[in-house]
Amino acid sequence: MPKISHKGVQMPESPIRKLVPFAETAKKKGNKVYHLNIGQPDIKTPEVALNAVKNADITVLEYSHSAGFESYREKLAAYYQKQGLPINKEDIIITTGGSEALIFAMGSTMDEDDEIIIPEPFYANYNGFSTQNGVKVVPVMSGIETGFALPPIADFEKLITSRTKAILICNPGNPTGYMYSKEEIQQLAALVKKHDLFLIADEVYREFAYDGFEHFSVMNEESIAENAIMIDSVSKRFSMCGARIGCIVSKNKELMATAMKFAQARLSPPTYAQIASEAALDTPQSYFDDVIIEYKDRRDTLVNALNAIDGVQVAMPKGAFYCIAKLPVANAEDFAKWLLEEYDLNGETVMVAPAAGFYSTPGVGLNEVRLAYVLNKEDLIKSAEIIKEALKVYNK
Amino acid sequence: MPKISHKGVQMPESPIRKLVPFAETAKKKGNKVYHLNIGQPDIKTPEVALNAVKNADITVLEYSHSAGFESYREKLAAYYQKQGLPINKEDIIITTGGSEALIFAMGSTMDEDDEIIIPEPFYANYNGFSTQNGVKVVPVMSGIETGFALPPIADFEKLITSRTKAILICNPGNPTGYMYSKEEIQQLAALVKKHDLFLIADEVYREFAYDGFEHFSVMNEESIAENAIMIDSVSKRFSMCGARIGCIVSKNKELMATAMKFAQARLSPPTYAQIASEAALDTPQSYFDDVIIEYKDRRDTLVNALNAIDGVQVAMPKGAFYCIAKLPVANAEDFAKWLLEEYDLNGETVMVAPAAGFYSTPGVGLNEVRLAYVLNKEDLIKSAEIIKEALKVYNK
Repeated sequence: MPKISHKGVQMPESPIRKLVPFAETAKKKGNKVYHLNIGQPDIKTPEVALNAVKNADITVLEYSHSAGFESYREKLAAYYQKQGLPINKEDIIITTGGSEALIFAMGSTMDEDDEIIIPEPFYANYNGFSTQNGVKVVPVMSGIETGFALPPIADFEKLITSRTKAILICNPGNPTGYMYSKEEIQQLAALVKKHDLFLIADEVYREFAYDGFEHFSVMNEESIAENAIMIDSVSKRFSMCGARIGCIVSKNKELMATAMKFAQARLSPPTYAQIASEAALDTPQSYFDDVIIEYKDRRDTLVNALNAIDGVQVAMPKGAFYCIAKLPVANAEDFAKWLLEEYDLNGETVMVAPAAGFYSTPGVGLNEVRLAYVLNKEDLIKSAEIIKEALKVYNK
Repeated sequence: MPKISHKGVQMPESPIRKLVPFAETAKKKGNKVYHLNIGQPDIKTPEVALNAVKNADITVLEYSHSAGFESYREKLAAYYQKQGLPINKEDIIITTGGSEALIFAMGSTMDEDDEIIIPEPFYANYNGFSTQNGVKVVPVMSGIETGFALPPIADFEKLITSRTKAILICNPGNPTGYMYSKEEIQQLAALVKKHDLFLIADEVYREFAYDGFEHFSVMNEESIAENAIMIDSVSKRFSMCGARIGCIVSKNKELMATAMKFAQARLSPPTYAQIASEAALDTPQSYFDDVIIEYKDRRDTLVNALNAIDGVQVAMPKGAFYCIAKLPVANAEDFAKWLLEEYDLNGETVMVAPAAGFYSTPGVGLNEVRLAYVLNKEDLIKSAEIIKEALKVYNK
């Protein structure tokens, strides 16, 4: 019998999907499950994007350019420029989701056993992409008590070795909702310049900023033009997760030429999805304004309801649509399973993502869960009520 | 300045794209270029696929299941079963092109510095995916004199070390057009069983079989159910290269569970393209019959015209839509550049892919080119005429 690779054995399972069999049990029992566990928004995809695909005049569904449609890259650069990001067409390679952009970024900057420093908790699939690339994740701890602000630069510096090649941040953060300030980005910039590291910034939630906080991109920090790599995606911005279109952006020409070799090997990003993504750039501003109002409202609803529960602590997110909640339980994963398998409030229950899977350090975050506020307000109120009542029963 | 990874430096450039700047020169000079260099068919995509996308009723373009639509996997299994391949829904993971299926297959079976044996010449991007995975390609030579038949098993056996994890074949072959016989597959089966290796078979051209040759899949060889991994794609079958939909197929449950972890990390394959691919399975048989007649006709036209040229030798392809032509020149790459930069026959010239890029052994195939017969017959006749006249001038 042939053997699976060590890498394959080490590939982590997604903490978000871990509980799926338990959710199936809940559904089999006839219970309704509110899914706060995944970041699949219920927001409608802009019609201009959907219509562009409907109206596309295709006779042969051909490969596109390996860097993506030139017309799309041009329009995307204009979109970024309007947002104050100094990005040109040639700084962009269109990828199959932000996922592929991360794979290209890691492959272009790191070899087997190289190290990447990531503030934890972090988007769990960073572990998967690192394992796939043979790269070692070195976590640096951020905590709920600071609202998951940037850890002190000294904490990063302690972790830097000759194998450290990059720092990876998610801004605003999944799963924390924290948004790094200009000052925090500048501190990181000084650090990566000092140590000749790449700074990879996953900015797919850039537009989801609340309370007047302004997003400061790594692309805005000109001192690190050679160090900065921005990861982007249409998935959340336009509620087009199924398109699988993202991009890798950098001013570093050698980096982009390298990423292009990875892009050429896999031929091209999906054509239909590029048609949709290019057209989506014509989405009127009112769509975003409405979406931001909706998410802010959902955030306030969920976070306030959760913070009102005895023993629950939630750091107010500044962006994205996730929050980490500390629960008055010893093991949030056990609680999450119990919610699905054994509990219901009038035939309804909640699925949450245990937050331990978002930490790389073992034993941390055991009493935390990640919640995505991607459901409507009414469902969020019900979900918080279910968690409140469930905790009473669970802790008896 | 931060450093690019060694892996990134080593990533090969595509031999197919190498001459693109020279083609641009030809076009700037006003010359028409016949593209025999790429496998982008001009065949129309089935309308049933295009219409399914046009008529799709989508309001939120959501992630799909990481293994792809369940409905698509079911229908695809039925398609395979009709073709005599014993494949069930749970043996299939839908991928973003055959490219991603290969990346998942390599990642699931091989670690850094492991070795994969591949008969050369082979599809050049196998080099890229191997480099990306830190895997070493060990070539085993096949030659034009046997029509690129399977090299003797003893040649494979000599190359097997403790680091050898898999053998990779393309059947029918890009760039050779050779189709392995049942006996050849069975010889490979005995070999991989004996040495506990995986046998990865890229069968994306399966339906393109001519002269009554019948394709024998690795999935048909039940003795290697645990060793066989089939790579497939809709790109060529339905002339849907831009969809970027393929799949990885295996009966080995541990392998599939591992590939699934890679699939989950990147979330899902593109949704629109899956809609098109699922619908494409309803393409009437007459479409394929017409396509096969067309390609056979093109093959005969091109190969016969080339073989009629003094000093040119082409092995008659049994499948796919490529052939390797040996030319009476010392360096086919120089000739290919010259064709674009300096030559034209009445304002027309030809772009071919130098075959050396399809060999892993340095210095081999220097007088060979790969030609894709994806153009209409008239253009192929003109292309052969251009090559014939060009050789006279070039060799003066």
